[in-house]
Amino acid sequence: MSDDINEQRRKVLKVTGAISAAAMITSPFHVFATEPNRRIPSQGYAAFDESGILKPWTFERRPVGDHDILIETKFASICHSDIHQEKGHWGKQQYPQVPGHEIVGMVAAVGKNVTKFKVGDRAGVGCMCGNHYHKHDTYEEQYSPDTLFTYGYPDTRSPSGITQGGYSNNIVVEENFAVHIPENVSFQEAVPLLCAGITTYSPLMRADIKKGMKVGVAGIGGLGHLAVKIAVSKGCDVYAFTTSPSKVKDIESFGATAVVVNDLSKLQEYSGQMDYVISTIPYDFNVAAYAATVKPYGTFTQVGMPIRSEVTMNALYLAFSRVNFNASLIGGMKETQEVVNYCADNKVLPQIEMIQADQINQAWENVVDKKARYRYVIDASTF
Amino acid sequence: MSDDINEQRRKVLKVTGAISAAAMITSPFHVFATEPNRRIPSQGYAAFDESGILKPWTFERRPVGDHDILIETKFASICHSDIHQEKGHWGKQQYPQVPGHEIVGMVAAVGKNVTKFKVGDRAGVGCMCGNHYHKHDTYEEQYSPDTLFTYGYPDTRSPSGITQGGYSNNIVVEENFAVHIPENVSFQEAVPLLCAGITTYSPLMRADIKKGMKVGVAGIGGLGHLAVKIAVSKGCDVYAFTTSPSKVKDIESFGATAVVVNDLSKLQEYSGQMDYVISTIPYDFNVAAYAATVKPYGTFTQVGMPIRSEVTMNALYLAFSRVNFNASLIGGMKETQEVVNYCADNKVLPQIEMIQADQINQAWENVVDKKARYRYVIDASTF
Repeated sequence: MSDDINEQRRKVLKVTGAISAAAMITSPFHVFATEPNRRIPSQGYAAFDESGILKPWTFERRPVGDHDILIETKFASICHSDIHQEKGHWGKQQYPQVPGHEIVGMVAAVGKNVTKFKVGDRAGVGCMCGNHYHKHDTYEEQYSPDTLFTYGYPDTRSPSGITQGGYSNNIVVEENFAVHIPENVSFQEAVPLLCAGITTYSPLMRADIKKGMKVGVAGIGGLGHLAVKIAVSKGCDVYAFTTSPSKVKDIESFGATAVVVNDLSKLQEYSGQMDYVISTIPYDFNVAAYAATVKPYGTFTQVGMPIRSEVTMNALYLAFSRVNFNASLIGGMKETQEVVNYCADNKVLPQIEMIQADQINQAWENVVDKKARYRYVIDASTF
Repeated sequence: MSDDINEQRRKVLKVTGAISAAAMITSPFHVFATEPNRRIPSQGYAAFDESGILKPWTFERRPVGDHDILIETKFASICHSDIHQEKGHWGKQQYPQVPGHEIVGMVAAVGKNVTKFKVGDRAGVGCMCGNHYHKHDTYEEQYSPDTLFTYGYPDTRSPSGITQGGYSNNIVVEENFAVHIPENVSFQEAVPLLCAGITTYSPLMRADIKKGMKVGVAGIGGLGHLAVKIAVSKGCDVYAFTTSPSKVKDIESFGATAVVVNDLSKLQEYSGQMDYVISTIPYDFNVAAYAATVKPYGTFTQVGMPIRSEVTMNALYLAFSRVNFNASLIGGMKETQEVVNYCADNKVLPQIEMIQADQINQAWENVVDKKARYRYVIDASTF
């Protein structure tokens, strides 16, 4: 697979990496963006009901506002959250809805007040795309009541009435909700960092992980495998808890100290040993049993969001382990830029599998069936 | 009620407080206890099946071992846990089973190696009654795998095969699992401290509550009303969250700064304001909504143990509040002595209602119906 990636990377660098700002002005999107109040035509893949089956959809995005940038998407990647949300697992949805909150591409147009990006910049977008121009900017973005999430979120400026995500050939976002993608990382390998990267990096940093600490990661999929790599890069002894025996060799190659193909008795062997554990498991599970692997008074963080976002735990069991349970959402925009730069500089990169748009439905099935290795990246030229 | 309590207290002090050790030797239990390997006859109220209906039961306790003390029970009080356990809410039970883990009385006999108690001492027993003679004494008692809990716990030394609790006229416990009841508190007011007191005191102390801190207490029953009083006694501003409008005046009289008769919209008014919150709610509830009243990165502790001990929480909601959730079990024996002394010295005493043994079944119904105000204390002379 890595040869494929390198080949893809060479192609991308050829097409995009060396492109000049002047050349970008010829982007077809730029034409629309330069006309005031002109909506942006977009082509993507949308869900049309709770079946979660995606089909091609042509739609419009809001005009590029004064603080907005228009990104011509190059790649979008698949997060388990896309599947949960489009299938209505987290609540009733408005359709058609274009999922996708891991997005990279080239800036094709900028609003008149934009200062952080210029046409031709390499840019990325994650789970958030704006906050009504910072009415509540004392909050970190992810906690602000005004933050717009990247898809399916009510947005009166959007012609469809909701935000439409990254499985499409372009996106309009407020400039403060995009990050720069440095030149020392391919677009394809950067794109999963926008959600999977920041969502694991942020709580790991808050846990103040350090060299020599024992860090557990439960659930080794798109998020989990990045959590393993990030913790390994920080010098931690990483214990990976997975239900997939077929992932063991991969996970060892990521640098894990031990891979535990878990049943409850295996978990008990690690009782009270971890300094910190992060769980990316996106379904309800025996939280207290996993939490019990943490040292007394340590912390266990849940980042996977199950159906209805609900986790059930045995309070008695949790009391015996004396472990603090918390949940973490994503991370702020400053930290999102930080994780992109950190991973690019330290070559902490996801394992990816490239697909075309017409392979998305199969890829979603594979994600649910735990067959993804480890992040599907969609070539946006196929939307 | 307080006049009644004072009257009761005077009677008790007259009967027990001034009693001499010599007089105690005439206790009928003492006769049995002095014969080697002689089982102790006991009379109490037991559940016979998951209906949880209690009836009188005559049974035997183990002989007084070398490290044991025999306590002639004076009062036992009713904890919601008694009801959950006898009704099988926490798992299948062996019957007949005598509940009760809030117990006070007079020491009627001591084993030959006992050093901490003598006949005639005022003693109390809580949720634990032994630990197989400290095989694992590096653990605090509540976390030791060898600890015996006071009722329904397998115990090969017990003639019935399980530990039998405090709704009875005597109990045999290892001396390290009894505490001294000081003379400056009545037996009746001390007895709820053995579980309700320690269970709330221990996590409040771990949270390092201090003067001026905003401490929330959710669920104002037997445990919650003591949590309010303890936090008030430490100088905290206490916010009480209750579902019972009829408790408001009582709770204000305990010193609470505010009493919130809660629905979800009321909880939202307190979003992110508390330094710490303890929940004594003994049923599953909207944990994340209550936890959101805590300041970001603060702690919410659950001590009530619901059916199956399970609590369900919305991880997304919890992520937004950035609050740590943990559960606390009881407290250690050293801390149990500490809370008894603290409450006696500072007059942090429970509101109690005295009943006789034949009123237990009605009292249990009242507890479930939230009609208890706030702890039922059973006169052990009526068993």
